[in-house]
Amino acid sequence: MQGTVRGLSYTLLRAARLSGSVRMSTHTIVPPSPALLLPLCIPQRLMLGPGPSNVPPRIQTAGGLQVLGHMHPEVFQIMDDIKLGIQYAFQTKNTLTLAVSGSGHCAMETAIFNVVEKSEVVLVACNGIWGERAADIAQRIGADVHLMAKQPGEGFTLKEIEKGLAQHKPSLFFISHGESSSGVVQPLDGIGDLCHRYNCLLLVDSVASLGGAPIYMDQQGIDILYSGSQKVLNAPPGTAPISFSEAASKKIFSRKTKPPSLYVDLTWLANYWGCDGKPRIYHHTGPVTNFYSLREGLAILAETGLERSWEIHRENALRLYKGLEDLGLKLFVKDPALRLPTVTTISAPEGYDWKEITTYIMKNHGIEITGGLGPSTGKVLRIGLMGYNSTKTNVDRVLNALRDALQHCSKNKM
Amino acid sequence: MQGTVRGLSYTLLRAARLSGSVRMSTHTIVPPSPALLLPLCIPQRLMLGPGPSNVPPRIQTAGGLQVLGHMHPEVFQIMDDIKLGIQYAFQTKNTLTLAVSGSGHCAMETAIFNVVEKSEVVLVACNGIWGERAADIAQRIGADVHLMAKQPGEGFTLKEIEKGLAQHKPSLFFISHGESSSGVVQPLDGIGDLCHRYNCLLLVDSVASLGGAPIYMDQQGIDILYSGSQKVLNAPPGTAPISFSEAASKKIFSRKTKPPSLYVDLTWLANYWGCDGKPRIYHHTGPVTNFYSLREGLAILAETGLERSWEIHRENALRLYKGLEDLGLKLFVKDPALRLPTVTTISAPEGYDWKEITTYIMKNHGIEITGGLGPSTGKVLRIGLMGYNSTKTNVDRVLNALRDALQHCSKNKM
Repeated sequence: MQGTVRGLSYTLLRAARLSGSVRMSTHTIVPPSPALLLPLCIPQRLMLGPGPSNVPPRIQTAGGLQVLGHMHPEVFQIMDDIKLGIQYAFQTKNTLTLAVSGSGHCAMETAIFNVVEKSEVVLVACNGIWGERAADIAQRIGADVHLMAKQPGEGFTLKEIEKGLAQHKPSLFFISHGESSSGVVQPLDGIGDLCHRYNCLLLVDSVASLGGAPIYMDQQGIDILYSGSQKVLNAPPGTAPISFSEAASKKIFSRKTKPPSLYVDLTWLANYWGCDGKPRIYHHTGPVTNFYSLREGLAILAETGLERSWEIHRENALRLYKGLEDLGLKLFVKDPALRLPTVTTISAPEGYDWKEITTYIMKNHGIEITGGLGPSTGKVLRIGLMGYNSTKTNVDRVLNALRDALQHCSKNKM
Repeated sequence: MQGTVRGLSYTLLRAARLSGSVRMSTHTIVPPSPALLLPLCIPQRLMLGPGPSNVPPRIQTAGGLQVLGHMHPEVFQIMDDIKLGIQYAFQTKNTLTLAVSGSGHCAMETAIFNVVEKSEVVLVACNGIWGERAADIAQRIGADVHLMAKQPGEGFTLKEIEKGLAQHKPSLFFISHGESSSGVVQPLDGIGDLCHRYNCLLLVDSVASLGGAPIYMDQQGIDILYSGSQKVLNAPPGTAPISFSEAASKKIFSRKTKPPSLYVDLTWLANYWGCDGKPRIYHHTGPVTNFYSLREGLAILAETGLERSWEIHRENALRLYKGLEDLGLKLFVKDPALRLPTVTTISAPEGYDWKEITTYIMKNHGIEITGGLGPSTGKVLRIGLMGYNSTKTNVDRVLNALRDALQHCSKNKM
């Protein structure tokens, strides 16, 4: 009992605590809330919304493994595996390939923060929430942002894109491959060539589509591509794969000014991820257990094979479309070629309150399906079938739940 | 077999895959690396560096639980629990209390990005790496940054701080409570009052100290305080607790310009964390399994009790100091009142290569201890005893490993 804490001996301190009055130095301790003493309980739930998707046992196990240091060689090996996994999933040979320590939005910021400098022109194709967000981020850092807007549920033609490029002469063009708020998959062939012809880099969001719909980063001339961990890859949210072409890297590493963020500065991240050929030095403490989970998600995709994964998602989506039409429901995306296989949007059924349907299905079937998001709010119901969750059984379960909900949910009196 | 993928029938596709040539549309699939087919292996390791620290079984289990939606009521409940846990750990009643979806650096950026606008004066107390990083971030967003520099191993007096405040008239003053690169704990009493007298907000980094050394956010007048999940809280890295006083909140919510980042914009985060009294709307996909782990780390701290936790860290640190001196090693921080109980720095032993010692201990004892970081590189060895890892047994294990290393590592011939 030799030690003292700010002048109070431990013996005194113990006596004080036992007497119910705990003071250290001149400060008083405020006790914790009793809510923290209750156990943590996580219910069973089938996650058929637009993500996160359910995590298979192999990935759950990985997420519960003991942490290692963010600079240990075993973790660098796992990060190297993740790079290989992303290169496969993205179909790219890009050296500057890594996962950011944050959500898909963090990856979106990583792209825009590093590629764009103040006053540069950014053109954003906006047919849902992701375009809105990309424009917001670019505006915050002082870019000259122009929108090419379309209604949710529609895609962009090469002609429309060329018109935008010719008119605005942007240095960066943003488009979503998987517009999960509206359920649209944007055809990408030809956009890279167009952008390059106009001396512009192509940035593509594939958060909701990667592994569920074909994408070929190198062959399609995509300069910056990012995704998320919690969709088809079936890992928990918290990391986001991203990759940069030679041209994008060149622009990034010849910036006149530092990017606004240290946390996502690619000069640092490229080093931490072993992309710059130099010894790795400490940047930030990477979320190592999320890296374990992401590594396993990418490994499962590699074992399944991309083309098989695309096929599974398309088969189950077609099965879902058929079942929805049999229930008298209407698919929100009219053009079958623009339907995103991972997230299906249903036009909000007339005479129903969409919120009542999703609540009924959650309560009575333990299944998450959701309403719209951003510009599609109130217009759609959304069903996600991603990776591990993209199965015939789940299609039948959600159709059964919807049938039940349509029978039991009271008609809207409007 | 009715479906087609970009014009190729599945039958054709299967035949193509069986024949070894897989083509979809005009694009060719590049196969995955065989490295991804190897199993994920995580070795057993005692993590006695400056963090991450080992994760106890209860928190590992939480991290491996099934994901729920980032907008599900059960997750909002867990986020509410986290807020209560942070309020207890920080000893604050602040409404604007939450965890950011990233590492401690992300929390540092959240603080500076939201509180500081272009051209505002920021004063940074710099006696190790964290001050350097805070200055770097503030400079990136155009602040007028001034440094108050000291040698690693030293702290700041109130007189020195007052001189800096009077000279530079900053709107924000940054100081580290736990300078883990040098092993210094900064006394905080009186700094808040000083800052407020000079019309300045006080920002404190407690990533390495929270739960291990006394801190009283409200009573000490700290305006912005942040920490990390992976130190005394013993959760995996990936989330970072942060809290803002009334005065800080007022400054944030009356900014003239938007913060540079959407991802850490507090207008959005305050809503997502239920701090603004409005219905929560989608901002980003929170790392839900990291929230589970953080919730459990904070619950364990609440069950242990802050004062008991501080006492444990101090007792084990004192035991470590005694053992190190018995081995003939010198503590780097001369003033006992400035020694951080969670991270002990040892002056790099003369005649040894510090890197050989850490490598020997990792290889032969499976224990991580580290060298210095930033300005302390080459000057120190660092031993962390944090939360679950702060035990007598671990003190004895690391002392035994050090004794062995000192006997076996070849003397430096310089």
